[in-house]
Order: sequence, then structure tokens, then C-alpha cells
Amino acid sequence: MFDFEFHNPTKIVFGRQTVARLDTLVPANARVLVLYGGGSAQKNGTLDEVLGALGSREIQQFGGIEANPTYETLMRAVELIREQKLDFLLAVGGGSVIDGTKFVAAAVAYQGEPWEILETYGAKVTQALPFGSVLTLPATGSEMNNGGVVTRKSTQSKLPFRSPHVFPQFSILDPDKTLTLPPRQLANGVADAFTHVVEQYLTYPVEGRVQDRFAEGLLQTLVEIGPKVLNDPDDDVRANLMWVATLALNGLVGAGVPQDWSTHMIGHELTAGYGIDHARTLAVVLPANLQIRRESKRRKLLQYAERVWHITDGSEEQRIDAAIERTRSFFESLDIRTRLHDYDIGADAIDALIAQLEAHGMTRLGEGKDVTPDVSRRILEASL
Amino acid sequence: MFDFEFHNPTKIVFGRQTVARLDTLVPANARVLVLYGGGSAQKNGTLDEVLGALGSREIQQFGGIEANPTYETLMRAVELIREQKLDFLLAVGGGSVIDGTKFVAAAVAYQGEPWEILETYGAKVTQALPFGSVLTLPATGSEMNNGGVVTRKSTQSKLPFRSPHVFPQFSILDPDKTLTLPPRQLANGVADAFTHVVEQYLTYPVEGRVQDRFAEGLLQTLVEIGPKVLNDPDDDVRANLMWVATLALNGLVGAGVPQDWSTHMIGHELTAGYGIDHARTLAVVLPANLQIRRESKRRKLLQYAERVWHITDGSEEQRIDAAIERTRSFFESLDIRTRLHDYDIGADAIDALIAQLEAHGMTRLGEGKDVTPDVSRRILEASL
Repeated sequence: MFDFEFHNPTKIVFGRQTVARLDTLVPANARVLVLYGGGSAQKNGTLDEVLGALGSREIQQFGGIEANPTYETLMRAVELIREQKLDFLLAVGGGSVIDGTKFVAAAVAYQGEPWEILETYGAKVTQALPFGSVLTLPATGSEMNNGGVVTRKSTQSKLPFRSPHVFPQFSILDPDKTLTLPPRQLANGVADAFTHVVEQYLTYPVEGRVQDRFAEGLLQTLVEIGPKVLNDPDDDVRANLMWVATLALNGLVGAGVPQDWSTHMIGHELTAGYGIDHARTLAVVLPANLQIRRESKRRKLLQYAERVWHITDGSEEQRIDAAIERTRSFFESLDIRTRLHDYDIGADAIDALIAQLEAHGMTRLGEGKDVTPDVSRRILEASL
Repeated sequence: MFDFEFHNPTKIVFGRQTVARLDTLVPANARVLVLYGGGSAQKNGTLDEVLGALGSREIQQFGGIEANPTYETLMRAVELIREQKLDFLLAVGGGSVIDGTKFVAAAVAYQGEPWEILETYGAKVTQALPFGSVLTLPATGSEMNNGGVVTRKSTQSKLPFRSPHVFPQFSILDPDKTLTLPPRQLANGVADAFTHVVEQYLTYPVEGRVQDRFAEGLLQTLVEIGPKVLNDPDDDVRANLMWVATLALNGLVGAGVPQDWSTHMIGHELTAGYGIDHARTLAVVLPANLQIRRESKRRKLLQYAERVWHITDGSEEQRIDAAIERTRSFFESLDIRTRLHDYDIGADAIDALIAQLEAHGMTRLGEGKDVTPDVSRRILEASL
């Protein structure tokens, strides 16, 4: 096991009817900016519920944060906060709104051009406004971690950042908030959480026994509830999806073990360049990535085959093939297509995607820093 | 799944040579009380290492905190802190020292007789001195939770308390600190962590899928490393034991699911009355407890049998019997005896033990509040 630090101070308030708890969670004298997305929080009543719970506090609203939140939009929130001297942020939405709120929280106090926060992956952040979240879409885990991803429209750059200063102070997880989600977003949430775990698990063994067991437990749970999420999302399925997605990326299963994240970095270029849903880019890239790098991931692929998919028959090569095939089938069973051509992207697109990876410094990816642009190219070719 | 809150702000610094990190973790102007136990931290050099890392800070020391720390001893530390106006506590030791430090941290600022903290199980604690820990004995999980247990010698009372104010700010987990531990303490650590997980898992099903998987992962890991802890504790075994024991009781596997804890409460009376090691009381009480309450725990016992012990053959009764037997054998394989008569305690002791449970308000124990004194009596009789 590697040495590690683990520190996650976010308070989770989990259960139905918990939005009312905002009244005790947000400081009584706070001047609050409520940030939300494209309007679903307005339509389904969550926004009204939030505003009601905040009572007589000074409140401003900022709607319109996009899926894959943009620097351009978020900087308008930063200006509003500075103008109105607001001092507490409340994200109401899914990963995009929470990621965006993290960036806004850090950018308000940033000395210099805030895009530097992303260019330096968060290393230059020294303070941030306090904020909380009301989660409406289980997927990214942003509600209980200190990372975010922001896109700059003008340059088609989608970059991640993280900082110990951008943990939410609290997150409210009410499984009933998922009742109005369309199947596409629920399926994306399952695929996103699944891939988050795989990025922290399917690398090489370091005797992180409990990290492996926890990762396998999350993957098994997603495999069990995945079909029900689309077809029969009862109370328990919704609750489990919400808690699993949070735990998939709260720092715990990745503490003390190698991490990959090359699938995410390659996937980000597909979203930035073609607007494909984040989770769908992962479902395209992951099976191909595991196939191309099967040698360096051999031992963990065999463990994954046995413990997650119960594949024990056949040669090592057959078991690895079967595990990768089951991974692809799992995504497809969620109505998520797993080939670039399903998204009308052909081989001719690959040069530009590789150029963008290089432009963003993504030239030594993966747990072994061996996913060079050439390896990324082979992964994309295998994704066609 | 039940509604829940989860909040664990303790920062974990895990790895070898991490004691030196105290210099950045403890405030530079802190007036520190270093608390430790019976002298092993002095003998093996950890105390010197800690004092060295604290540099030129104002430091006082308080040694002699017992296994099963006593109110009488801890109140002397409280006096010293008040006299010397110390403002930061550093526990160097195992669960007893950390539990004791939590009590001291809460008692210093307590208005009134601090024994009330225990009589009210921590509910009256409104503030505490900040503190951190350097863990030397993986077992209790106290290094990453907000609970403790204190014994009052004069009345043979051993009572638990918890409060959101007594999370350690940080805990340093250096697996090499376990190198000098005697086998008895290592075995106790395995049994203690195992029982902590069981208390939060072996109740009744509520569709807490990931909590179950995490609990089973911790138990499987303890079953795998248990024998090696005694016979071949290499670097990886030590590291895994330390991290598993911490995760066994940091609030995570118990969030949103029923919890039992009757084995602990009955065990506490055995320690208070007869001085038996805490972990050994658990190994005595747990198999009998599972046997007596097998009906109410039936579904989880069957799940435990299958997922932890891979018992799939036989009738339900046979599988439950086998799982309980494997649990007992596991403790015995750690050189821990699992019968009261192994500790020279006979049936004539049971009346007094039940009377103590009643005196401490322990009359409705367990996940169903149905472990009355009569049920506790049957459990003790089955432990003979």
C-alpha cells in the first residue's frame, strides 16, 4: 500500500425531506448565492423548496450553469458575487452545478486571471468561499470531494482542478430528488460512478486489500442496481445509487493505491470537441483502454474478472477478454453506446483529438505515466 | 436504507516516517499536553520522536493512562491542563490513550462534574480542546471517530460516550509503530476490529447494499490477514491491519443501517468486573450472542455465511451454525479463548453481571432494543 493522506470534511445529510435542514446548515447571517442549472430545479420545485428553507436570508440566484460548465458562464457568477458582496454559495443540481460552484468559490478570491486555476489544476488556490450543495443527480461524486472540471468554450478546453479549499461544507442527498430524472441521466450516473471506481482500482496490485474490496463492492452494487435504475427505480434503488455514486469518488477507494484517470482525460476531449455526454465518453473509451493496456493491468483485470463478474473459467486471456466484454455489455445494457461510430465519429477525427490532448499537457497519462499520445491514439482507434 | 448523517473531519496521515509531520499539523503556538500510556511509547522511542517533531513548542507530558482508561487518572490530566493553561492535546498510543484524551478534551471545558459526560453518553458536551493522535496500536478505531469509553474504578462502571466535538483533528498512522507490539495486542486488535464491523452489519437487512459490501470487505480482509498478523506480519499486513481497524469504526459502514452493540455493552461488564482484555470479552460474547439471537438475525447471518465464509451448502440452520462456528474458530485461531470458563468465570458470576448492566441502564440493547436483561442472561449462559 502506498502512503497517503485522507481528509474529507464534507458533512453528508442523507434522506428524504432533508432540504429543510438548510436552515441549520447555512449560517443565519449568510448572504447566499444559489446556483443552479438549466431549469429543472425550477420546474420540479426543488429550487422553491431550497429558497423556502433559507428563510429570510439575503439571497441572490444564478441559473443557467450548463452540463460541462463553462468558464464564460461561471465568471459571470463571480462578478455577481463581487458586486453583491455575497459570502456563501449553495449549489442546487448535479455534478456540473457543483463543479461550477467550486470553481466560482475559488475564483472569487483568486488574485489574477482565474483561468490559471485550471491551467495549474488547482495548485494555486489558497482560499475559497464556503459553500454547500443540494444534490439532484447522482453521478459525479462532486458533492463529497474537492475536484471539479470546467470547460472554456473559446478554446474547447475541458480541464480538471482540485484543491483542499473546495470541499463542500455539507451536501444534502435526498434520493427523492432523482424521481424526475430522465432515464438518460440516470444511466449516465451509473456509468460515471462505475468508471470512477475503475479508474482507482483497475491498475496494478499494491496490497491495498480493503481499497480493493471497497472498490469491488461499489462495482458489484452498480452491476446489481444498474438495470433497476432504468426499469424499476424504487426507493431503495434510488438511495443506493445516490450513496454509491458519492462513495465512488470521495477519495476513499483511491487512498493509498495507484490511480489511472486516462479514460477520463481522453473522454474529456470527446466532450469538449463533440459535446458527447461525459458518461458516454467514458463508456466508449474504457473498454478500448482496458484492451490496449491489458498487459500492464493484467493482474487486476484477472481479479476484476473473478470478483466483480465471477469469471473463473478459461485461460487468463479468455478471462480478461470476458471481463472487458462484460464491461462493454454492462454499458450497453444501460442504453449507452460504446463505439465512436455510434456517435458519428470516424478515424479522421483522431488526429485532432490527439492534438488537443497534447495541447492540454495530457501526454503522460495513467497509473504508469505510460499513456503517451501514441497509446491514446491506439485507444481511440480501438474505440472506433 | 435508513436516513443518516455522515461527517468525519479527521485528517488521516498514513505511512512510514510520518510522525515528523506533527510539526505542520500542530499549531506553531500551541501549548501541548502529550498523553500516553504505560510506558511502551517511551521504551520504543515513539515518544522521543514525537517530542522531537514538536520542536520548540511548550510541552507538558502526562503518562500512565491505563488500558481501559479510568476517570480517576484522566481527571488528573484535566487538572494539569487547567493549571498550566494548555490548549492542544496529543494522544500517543492506542485506543485507550485516544479515548482518554477525548474525555479529557471534553472534560476540561465542561461546566459541572465531568462524570456527567459519561452518565449522559456525551450528549451534554458542547465544546472540547482540539487534539490529534499518533496511533501505535491498530484496534479500536478511536483515531478516526468521535467516541470513547471510560471506566470509573470506584464503581466498576465502564461507560461509552460520543460527541461531534471529540473527533481528532488529525491522526498519524505509521504501520511501523506496530513492529514492537506483542502478539497478544495484535490479536486483540484483529478481534476488536472484526467485532466492530459485525456490530454494524449482522442485524437485519435494510437494502444498505454498499454498507453491506464494505462491511463484508473489511471482514474478509481481517480473515485473510488475521493469521499473518500473528505469524508473518510483513509491511503489507501491518499497513492493512492499521487501515482496516480504522475503517471498521469510523462511522462509514454503520451509516444508514441498524446497529447492534449489545456484544460490546455486555463485554464492558466483563472488563469492568474481571479485567479481561476488551477484545477478549467480545470474542466470548459474540458467538453466544449470535446463537441466542439467530432468529432475529437470520437473514443477515445467512448473508454473512455466504459472503464472508463462503458457506453455501446445507440447510439454513446448518449454514448459520457453521458461520457462528467459523466466527468462534477465527478468534481461537488468534489465540483468543472464547468461553467464560477459559477466564475462570462460572455461572455464579452472571447475577452480578446482569445487575451491573441494569445499573448502567443497559436494559434494552441491540438493533431491536430487545436484548433485555433476560436475553443478556441467556447470552452469558451460552458463553460459559
